[in-house]
Amino acid sequence: MSVPRTGEEGPGKPGGPRKRGRPARTDADGGPGARERILAAARTEFAERGYDKASIRAMARGANVDPALVHHYFGPKEQIFAAAVEVALAPALEGPDAVLKGGPDTAGERMTRFFLGIWEAPDTREPLLAIVRSAVANETAAAVFRNLVTSRLMFRIAGELDVAEPELRAELAAAQLIGVVMLRYVIKVEPLASAGLEQLVAQVAPVVQRHLAGA
Amino acid sequence: MSVPRTGEEGPGKPGGPRKRGRPARTDADGGPGARERILAAARTEFAERGYDKASIRAMARGANVDPALVHHYFGPKEQIFAAAVEVALAPALEGPDAVLKGGPDTAGERMTRFFLGIWEAPDTREPLLAIVRSAVANETAAAVFRNLVTSRLMFRIAGELDVAEPELRAELAAAQLIGVVMLRYVIKVEPLASAGLEQLVAQVAPVVQRHLAGA
Repeated sequence: MSVPRTGEEGPGKPGGPRKRGRPARTDADGGPGARERILAAARTEFAERGYDKASIRAMARGANVDPALVHHYFGPKEQIFAAAVEVALAPALEGPDAVLKGGPDTAGERMTRFFLGIWEAPDTREPLLAIVRSAVANETAAAVFRNLVTSRLMFRIAGELDVAEPELRAELAAAQLIGVVMLRYVIKVEPLASAGLEQLVAQVAPVVQRHLAGA
Repeated sequence: MSVPRTGEEGPGKPGGPRKRGRPARTDADGGPGARERILAAARTEFAERGYDKASIRAMARGANVDPALVHHYFGPKEQIFAAAVEVALAPALEGPDAVLKGGPDTAGERMTRFFLGIWEAPDTREPLLAIVRSAVANETAAAVFRNLVTSRLMFRIAGELDVAEPELRAELAAAQLIGVVMLRYVIKVEPLASAGLEQLVAQVAPVVQRHLAGA
């Protein structure tokens, strides 16, 4: 004999955006910490389903608020994504300061260590990877990512370079590092995926330095 | 008064994989050119929906064959994807020969010109971009892409290099070029996205050469 369904769902994934059956809070502002809860739910939803398929309703469910509140706090989907990218990029946004303090002769090594360091650590790698996946798959997500990366990372580094066409040079330096990230952490090509970090720094930092210094 | 539905669909997209209502051919082997039609339909389906969501049934509809024939010719989904990657990579597979014939002093420039040339031309760029999107989004697709790229491109170039750790060096050279591709053609970061090809070659080829030559 089969057990009849009661209409109640099992516990599911605690706090996940797919949880149903719990009424949304009816406070006009979603109650204390609503903005933070929405942002956390949005990051999970974008990471799990990508930009295209991420659902505002699922974010609202995950945050236990009315869907209208998601837009009230963040505006359209594009701007919710921008807020999620800001959070994922937060560790990287300290990069320009880390790269720029210290002499220009070692800026390439500092940029290499800082950038690869963020991707070595799973805590900082996973949120970035989720954002990169959305940006590669969707033009709108790419535009949001592009605007933040150029204004907050590339152009800040370029502003301190004493070379012709500093923006292009900062981007070519970043391109070397982004390519290493793609092959090492995303596509996982060997032997690059298993190479020691110090060996990589030894081979990549001079190239990054060359781009930054205009050799 | 609303017009009753007749059960017949409109013309839809001609030849697209979503076309319904046309009976699949019942020839046991799908008729002449069935393998080629299936492969073309599979490439369209992977490009439009990505590896995860690509449907074998849609490929069969697009090729006007029975779904079982798709597996008969290509095996499981992973192997259909491998066949699609082979087609998309075909222009790039001439790269190692182009890079390796000619002196070692200019291998970096030849590799840079060849690789960026493939991405400059929309005819060769779009199929590659579709494959890269699937590989970034899905681990199985990444594994297929990785195996082909390493065995057919990286290791062939590495086999001709007269340096220590040639595979790692070939991959670091490729990483510089892949990073340029990501920033220029996928994320479209300025000024890199609009920079002239010759200017890029002038700044990138020496770095690729440095990796390949072990400087």
